[in-house]
Amino acid sequence: MIYLDNSATTQPYKDVAEAYMKVATRYFGNPSSLHSLGMQAENLLIEARNRIADLLEVEAQEIIFTSGGTEGNSLAIKGTAYARSTHGKHVITSQVEHPSVLESFRQLEREGFEVTYLPVTEEGRVEPDDVSRALRPDTILVSLIHVNNEVGTIQPIEEIGKRLAGHPKVYYHVDHVQGITKVPLNVKASNVDLCTCSAHKFHGMKGTGFLYVRKGLQLSPLFQGGQQEGRIRAGTENVAGVVAMAKALRMTVEQQEQKLAKLVQQNRQVRDVLHQIEGVYVNSPEIDSAAPHIINFSVPGIKPEVLVQSLSEKEIYVSTKSACSSKLSAPSQILTAMGFGEDRASAGIRISLSFETTEVEIAALNKELQTVIPELLEVVKREV
Amino acid sequence: MIYLDNSATTQPYKDVAEAYMKVATRYFGNPSSLHSLGMQAENLLIEARNRIADLLEVEAQEIIFTSGGTEGNSLAIKGTAYARSTHGKHVITSQVEHPSVLESFRQLEREGFEVTYLPVTEEGRVEPDDVSRALRPDTILVSLIHVNNEVGTIQPIEEIGKRLAGHPKVYYHVDHVQGITKVPLNVKASNVDLCTCSAHKFHGMKGTGFLYVRKGLQLSPLFQGGQQEGRIRAGTENVAGVVAMAKALRMTVEQQEQKLAKLVQQNRQVRDVLHQIEGVYVNSPEIDSAAPHIINFSVPGIKPEVLVQSLSEKEIYVSTKSACSSKLSAPSQILTAMGFGEDRASAGIRISLSFETTEVEIAALNKELQTVIPELLEVVKREV
Ligand SMILES: Cc1ncc(COP(=O)(O)O)c(C=O)c1O
Ligand SMILES: Cc1ncc(COP(=O)(O)O)c(C=O)c1O
Repeated sequence: MIYLDNSATTQPYKDVAEAYMKVATRYFGNPSSLHSLGMQAENLLIEARNRIADLLEVEAQEIIFTSGGTEGNSLAIKGTAYARSTHGKHVITSQVEHPSVLESFRQLEREGFEVTYLPVTEEGRVEPDDVSRALRPDTILVSLIHVNNEVGTIQPIEEIGKRLAGHPKVYYHVDHVQGITKVPLNVKASNVDLCTCSAHKFHGMKGTGFLYVRKGLQLSPLFQGGQQEGRIRAGTENVAGVVAMAKALRMTVEQQEQKLAKLVQQNRQVRDVLHQIEGVYVNSPEIDSAAPHIINFSVPGIKPEVLVQSLSEKEIYVSTKSACSSKLSAPSQILTAMGFGEDRASAGIRISLSFETTEVEIAALNKELQTVIPELLEVVKREV
Repeated sequence: MIYLDNSATTQPYKDVAEAYMKVATRYFGNPSSLHSLGMQAENLLIEARNRIADLLEVEAQEIIFTSGGTEGNSLAIKGTAYARSTHGKHVITSQVEHPSVLESFRQLEREGFEVTYLPVTEEGRVEPDDVSRALRPDTILVSLIHVNNEVGTIQPIEEIGKRLAGHPKVYYHVDHVQGITKVPLNVKASNVDLCTCSAHKFHGMKGTGFLYVRKGLQLSPLFQGGQQEGRIRAGTENVAGVVAMAKALRMTVEQQEQKLAKLVQQNRQVRDVLHQIEGVYVNSPEIDSAAPHIINFSVPGIKPEVLVQSLSEKEIYVSTKSACSSKLSAPSQILTAMGFGEDRASAGIRISLSFETTEVEIAALNKELQTVIPELLEVVKREV
């Protein structure tokens, strides 16, 4: 199996899965319980929170555990809107957001908020000047994706953060789900107020994630109940999942220096091959200004599901756009926002690497791409 | 270790933890992915959903996977309120609900909904007639706990469901988190529209749960995004957690017949001992009309934390009120609603059993109660 759909989800590291298992079965107490089994669980939770806060260079109390990226994005966006609506009802985002961000804004629109969806360059990038221009006295939130999940474009988060520094009433949320461990982001230096991450994208467990919430922020919870997570997110904590997430984050961060260079190299190798195949268009921006783990390309005329299937039969797993919307056949909204026509925007294929991806796998992928794409194009030609 | 805090959380069954592990590490694909690893994950999800639906005697599409009981309760209550507010803004609940229900209603109150908090009898029971009387033309929701998490009182869910049958516009939500596998409830026969369950209360994993949502209901999602869970609950599915939950439910349901009788017997044994100790008051209703796994009692004069600590030192784990509010020193709202005075309401101790609880453990508990309580009372007497 050659798994190249790491932007959809990653395989948990063996050590991470084992840590999960150990905590789930041995330290299974409820952290809110007063007896020693509860206290052990609470201590594990505290340690995991400290670990994650250290890795992000933030304070432990600023880390709110969630069930994943979708919850984190919804909590950040709707939580800000509901808590701050007396200050204004204008919010800003971009045209290239993940569905969990986009749909949260659509919901706010239905509720009477006004949303500015910023356009992007042909590389999928938001212009910092456009953000400055969009700001109004009643703006309460700017929410941007750091690394685009379909094409890998990196947004100028720090530059935009500088523009927002003079606007302390505007909360700045970053969807860092695809960026974390792949593209550096210092939330403090970038003036980020809210930052969403999801463990299953960095070899942790599905159903766990965290939201960085800058100290002192006002945020309406999505669920109320117990006193957990600073009252921002009630519910019995998934202690094993949180410990596993902290471990996964530490393990990936420790490898970053060595593995990121390797990812860039592998990314280049795939692009080189794609550039040589006739009929193939690479949609991701140049590698110097994109995330190292994502390569998006189109072969107009070939249905992307067909190419995914052909590769799947050879046990090479890649995807069409984001997993969340892979079952919808409409053209990619991201590729459309980047200015690509429908034939290219509806044919996007995403290859996404991880620190675990090997040279041998890349070589096998490249060989298969060189065979399968011309074959499929040949079939199309014959049919037309 | 003698673990008697099963209403706070349970230890996952070994087979359940292993099933989790296998799925998490081997079938780790994203169910939305189109390749075969994604399809395998999707199939696991479908099977788990079918299994749970079968056990509940409902349809598969009526099971919505969540991150647990708190999310389920919030989604059911706020989701109904937001989706149905054009039909009315009056909602009904009781004075003996779990914080995740109570706080959801408090939030709705802040947003302009009108909430009726029904009183309870001295056994903690809601009178069906009170529900009927509270109904108004603008009522959109009745939400009740099935088995009370502090004292084990069983609400007449089916009887109240019959009263609500003539009011199809009123949604009927049941918090079944403590009831499932312990006290039978047929959601269809009881006219229940929404029913919350949480896996870690029946030997599944923390961070997983499900909400039964009757087909055709209108419900506003708490998070938007991908197409998962019939668009009621977006986010990458916790496949391993869901498979583990289905297995845990099957395993507990299979044991019900044999183990429930044993629970009743053990419960009686503990009560018999408690009744013999001077200064002890049992707060739970008679066992014939209460859940078999919960025994709540008070020893006025002894701080409940002190008793929990004393037992914890002997590796016997019990709790004060619900885990969610165990760190608050205020009197129990449940015991207060049942009419107990402050000295009794602020001294509640909860012993909660599981199908795994053994005779030997109960004997050890009873022996310890008979020693520790008189000792602690003696200390109090000497001090005063
Ligand atoms: C950029 C981005 N944001 C948010 C999400 C949602 O995260 P989750 O799958 O944990 O709900 C994803 C992945 O699905 C993503 O790629
Ligand atoms: C009756 C009841 N409802 C809801 C919950 C909340 O469930 P969870 O812990 O899965 O958030 C609990 C337990 O904490 C409970 O006992």
